[in-house]
Amino acid sequence: MLPDRLSRVITLLSRLPGVGEKTAQRYALHFVTRGDELASELGRELLALTDSIRTCDRCGNLAEHQALGPTICRICRDSRRDQNLLCVVAKVQDLLAIERSSVMRGQYFVLGQLLSPLEGAGPESLPLERLRQRIQELGAREIIIATPSSVEGEATALYLAQELASAQLTVSRIASGIPHGGDLEYTDQITLGRAIAGRRMLDEPR
Amino acid sequence: MLPDRLSRVITLLSRLPGVGEKTAQRYALHFVTRGDELASELGRELLALTDSIRTCDRCGNLAEHQALGPTICRICRDSRRDQNLLCVVAKVQDLLAIERSSVMRGQYFVLGQLLSPLEGAGPESLPLERLRQRIQELGAREIIIATPSSVEGEATALYLAQELASAQLTVSRIASGIPHGGDLEYTDQITLGRAIAGRRMLDEPR
Repeated sequence: MLPDRLSRVITLLSRLPGVGEKTAQRYALHFVTRGDELASELGRELLALTDSIRTCDRCGNLAEHQALGPTICRICRDSRRDQNLLCVVAKVQDLLAIERSSVMRGQYFVLGQLLSPLEGAGPESLPLERLRQRIQELGAREIIIATPSSVEGEATALYLAQELASAQLTVSRIASGIPHGGDLEYTDQITLGRAIAGRRMLDEPR
Repeated sequence: MLPDRLSRVITLLSRLPGVGEKTAQRYALHFVTRGDELASELGRELLALTDSIRTCDRCGNLAEHQALGPTICRICRDSRRDQNLLCVVAKVQDLLAIERSSVMRGQYFVLGQLLSPLEGAGPESLPLERLRQRIQELGAREIIIATPSSVEGEATALYLAQELASAQLTVSRIASGIPHGGDLEYTDQITLGRAIAGRRMLDEPR
């Protein structure tokens, strides 16, 4: 019952994560019924997007495409950040989440992949050489492994810790435990077990 | 921390209904991290959208823009539909919902507005003249008023029923009652009251 072009917009929108047919239709109707200039503005930006965004040559974060020279993201360009501290994450979204917490003032490295034997992703699929090179370039002394607290994330963390082990390097792992505001009564047993195993002394400096 | 163009895409996406900052970022990152050609395809379609979609001159449904002649939607062009039956809805989304049920085989009229004294929308804001003209053009004999079951929707339905009352025209209102699968125990009193007041004989043909 809808005009063809609107149906095509709905099909494309429903390829976004978490967007089904109904939500896509809601968005599409918003564009035509009261989107003002939204459809054309967003259209222009999206057309330009693919050409202007690249991944940072150093860390894998998103960066503005440079016509000349290497593509370097804002974090890698920021010399005020601690160059001795490198935080390893699985994907760009995780980097952004950590940035929002404003607690990590070092540099990042985006793996882009986790170990996942079930999906055929073995150790060779991890960018270990690039990571080693980055550690050397920065002269990093501590590596924080911030892969997710899933089976794949834990396996990757263990593997990286083994591979990177050396006298000059401290390798740490982000804590797993009760989330802020979490209720012990409703916490699953694995999380609770980790929270207890990972307990810290109350006089320990945070 | 994000490239400027990506931030602009996020700002625009968060103007969609029900999309906040986080969801908009999720969509935007999907475009750049694994959207393949999605961003450019959607960009092209959105740019063309505003020029190609109009509202139907007859009923207010969405229709493909015609270079020559009036803009007529698919439903109004469909001569197999019952021209004696006209269903009045508040907005295009409601028309599409009714079409999905495949129960209404007549024509539509989209009001685009409900009576809402609180928002300063009095009787003069309803397209009553256009509706009368449409009824005459079609030679409609029954009008189904399918405005929502809200205060504004009910007020609009009552007002239209009064205004359209004539010897040649039956004006009906869609039923209000327990939704399919609904539990009486958890149904609010207004709905339950309406369900009882609107009861029908079990031997009445449906």
